[in-house]
Amino acid sequence: MQDMTFILFGATGDLAQRKLFPALYNLFLDGKMPDSISIVGLGRYYCSNEFFQSKVEKALRLYSRRAVQTFGLQDFLTKFRYFAFDVTDHESYLNLFELIENRENELDIPENRLFYLSVAPKLVDVITSNLYANGISQTLGWKRIIVEKPFGSDLKSAQQLNDTLSKAFNEKEIYRIDHYLGKPMVQSFETLVLANPALAALLDHKQISNVQITASETVGVETRADYYDQAGALRDMVQNHLFQLVMMTALHLPGEVTTKENEIKKMEIIESLRPILKDKVYLDVVRGQYESGAILDTPVAGYKEEPGVNDSSMNDTYFAARLYIDNPSWNGIPIYIRTGKRMDKKSTRIVFELKNKVEESNVLQTEEITPNLLTFEISPNESISLRVNMKNPSSNRFYPVYMNHSTNSKDQPEAYELLLFDAMHGNKSFFAHWKEVELSWKWIQPILEAFQEDMLPLYPYPAGSTGPEAANQLLQSNQFNWW
Amino acid sequence: MQDMTFILFGATGDLAQRKLFPALYNLFLDGKMPDSISIVGLGRYYCSNEFFQSKVEKALRLYSRRAVQTFGLQDFLTKFRYFAFDVTDHESYLNLFELIENRENELDIPENRLFYLSVAPKLVDVITSNLYANGISQTLGWKRIIVEKPFGSDLKSAQQLNDTLSKAFNEKEIYRIDHYLGKPMVQSFETLVLANPALAALLDHKQISNVQITASETVGVETRADYYDQAGALRDMVQNHLFQLVMMTALHLPGEVTTKENEIKKMEIIESLRPILKDKVYLDVVRGQYESGAILDTPVAGYKEEPGVNDSSMNDTYFAARLYIDNPSWNGIPIYIRTGKRMDKKSTRIVFELKNKVEESNVLQTEEITPNLLTFEISPNESISLRVNMKNPSSNRFYPVYMNHSTNSKDQPEAYELLLFDAMHGNKSFFAHWKEVELSWKWIQPILEAFQEDMLPLYPYPAGSTGPEAANQLLQSNQFNWW
Repeated sequence: MQDMTFILFGATGDLAQRKLFPALYNLFLDGKMPDSISIVGLGRYYCSNEFFQSKVEKALRLYSRRAVQTFGLQDFLTKFRYFAFDVTDHESYLNLFELIENRENELDIPENRLFYLSVAPKLVDVITSNLYANGISQTLGWKRIIVEKPFGSDLKSAQQLNDTLSKAFNEKEIYRIDHYLGKPMVQSFETLVLANPALAALLDHKQISNVQITASETVGVETRADYYDQAGALRDMVQNHLFQLVMMTALHLPGEVTTKENEIKKMEIIESLRPILKDKVYLDVVRGQYESGAILDTPVAGYKEEPGVNDSSMNDTYFAARLYIDNPSWNGIPIYIRTGKRMDKKSTRIVFELKNKVEESNVLQTEEITPNLLTFEISPNESISLRVNMKNPSSNRFYPVYMNHSTNSKDQPEAYELLLFDAMHGNKSFFAHWKEVELSWKWIQPILEAFQEDMLPLYPYPAGSTGPEAANQLLQSNQFNWW
Repeated sequence: MQDMTFILFGATGDLAQRKLFPALYNLFLDGKMPDSISIVGLGRYYCSNEFFQSKVEKALRLYSRRAVQTFGLQDFLTKFRYFAFDVTDHESYLNLFELIENRENELDIPENRLFYLSVAPKLVDVITSNLYANGISQTLGWKRIIVEKPFGSDLKSAQQLNDTLSKAFNEKEIYRIDHYLGKPMVQSFETLVLANPALAALLDHKQISNVQITASETVGVETRADYYDQAGALRDMVQNHLFQLVMMTALHLPGEVTTKENEIKKMEIIESLRPILKDKVYLDVVRGQYESGAILDTPVAGYKEEPGVNDSSMNDTYFAARLYIDNPSWNGIPIYIRTGKRMDKKSTRIVFELKNKVEESNVLQTEEITPNLLTFEISPNESISLRVNMKNPSSNRFYPVYMNHSTNSKDQPEAYELLLFDAMHGNKSFFAHWKEVELSWKWIQPILEAFQEDMLPLYPYPAGSTGPEAANQLLQSNQFNWW
């Protein structure tokens, strides 16, 4: 891997402590770092390099999936420098530039610069403009920029954000990070099917009755009401994460081997997503908001009672929809998606329900036969399972069992490890292309507007439940159930 | 279920204590016994009914899969009577008849009589002749007889044994017990495939490259040298157990729904088993005999050093063969079978190796891809598993994992429970028909003769190993490995 400078805007923030520093450290442990790397952390307040390095170490001890090892630790920490930074101050950029160049000279490394923007969206414009204006992003080597979500709050703002970025970086240099694309299971989809005739056989389109993608959380809005009460589940989870899962599912499961770039294929999928018209949103979409309830027997407040939330908020904390991909492969196979806060359990998974071709016969009482399910659990545990019907030899009754494999999560790299590695390596496969982002906002726009104009009910659901009953009816109208 | 008398020849033997009494007790616990049943145990030596009942209770406490419950225990034990019996003595039969009839009158139950012969094969003739001659087997109700293995030691002796039985019982009344057919997993084969489109898809013939049936034991000849040194693995395990597994596999996996009786279909399968000619046995069959070695790090003696074994014995303690079923479904799919004593582990399982249709591409290094395996483990643990290739997201290398479901064995009825229940119920589905036995002896006869005439090597293998190397070569000649 080429030597480089890694410039992190937001180095004192939560994401840096919990995810980025541990990710860098685990890459370091695996020998997946450049031989020589200069890491520059930027934050608003002053602190010394030594203090910053001690903060990094503390973050590793708290959040690294693997225990911190004494051997090599100093070597790792001395790669870090800190720089107190004011994004609006011209001088700041000049000084930053000087620091970057000094370190490049010191380490004798080329001008390869990887910028990471872990900052509020409103700061992206001023930062990228200044990186460009001050020459920091004009390098003799390569430059790349990693941008965190949210990427806009609707089609227009996303386009503006992209225009801003495009002033200093071209599309190939922009890495829109979506950590769902960094999950090992999601990254495995393509090869899982290609390397396993058994899974390819199960995922034969003729055999699939429907697909269900769930991303449920038990947490509520936490301290993010400021942002979340404006965003809602649709912007926070659906436009980015769930859409990426839909694309990855449709793309790889089953794996259709073509010579087209995955980037192109993903766009084609989202282009063939059947549009939902604004005045028909209520037919295929369910939105909900949690009321007070209990999580693991502990009473919790309803959304409107959460600190920072307006008590007449119509914000969606739950979203479910029925999608169709109008291409030959997916013709007639509904894809159901749902996400919610304060649900009964935390789980991100993709379930393929197989057609129940079982025929009533003298050996079978079909009413006991449940559909076979092939489930890819993405988080919090990573597993593949196949649900089959077994017969109790005493009672002669069927009961469902799960043939399951769970990965030991300690052995699995975290999403940010894989994505940072890819970005350092220049591999954009698991980052969102602008066209994907733009098309997903376009597709979602009528729903955003229907929500805004209250054209469909906002169903309450108790915290700790599986969401509003209306979401069950969405499937029952096709004779299906959520799994 | 109809009330009946259960007459057990060999009531003081090992099988009765370890299997039959516990099986009856667990059926009793499940309410799967006739309302009124008279159980008569026969043995050579005198003991009182009370002493016999205390022996039954002791057997339950030692061997029942479920703990003995005080409630109902006396009720269960009082069903048992003991009768000291001399199989060659006419008087014995008259007295037995009287006892049976007295109990029938006492309990006011019909003349339904189920005989269980847990005795040496040479005694079958004298017992059945006398049951007939003395009128015990001429009942106003139904009569059935359960016969334990071995059912003959070659084609001729099996035919003689069958002729003997046929004097007193017709085929519908003869229950040839093979406890492999009583294993819950084996009994589930048919419905597993019918009730699970996922398994049917995996077991598509076009997808199967080969099938492997293994029945390995870690024990040696134990105290059975008298019998075993005459029988060998071929008679002791292959003609009966492994052949039944071959038939059940070919019959149900995948399940071909026809209106034919399973009995007929099983015969058709064994009739389409490609014959092995005596002078070609060495091409498709490997026999072996264990030498000294170690089981779980404990040194154990070789077969020839075992008590009761002739030190020049050429007896087979290991057997492997390649079979083909020449019918349209199984055309070209080899079925490998193997069994052995003093192997590295105890396991009875059926493995379906799926075709490795994986194509080399830029995302796959095919040399790392192992075939998908669908495994039905029958004992000692019952499980279904599917082996798939997963990719390590850090190293990008594939490794095999098992999607597995294991049944909790305490919750599973034992083979003898299921088979005794079927026999009491009059259901012969899981017993061997005479035609199956006869055809399997016929098929095996050339191999028996080739063994006798030393027409192929007897390969030594160390105790605790996976058997002789020649058995590996049997598969490698088709580019396969044992799983």
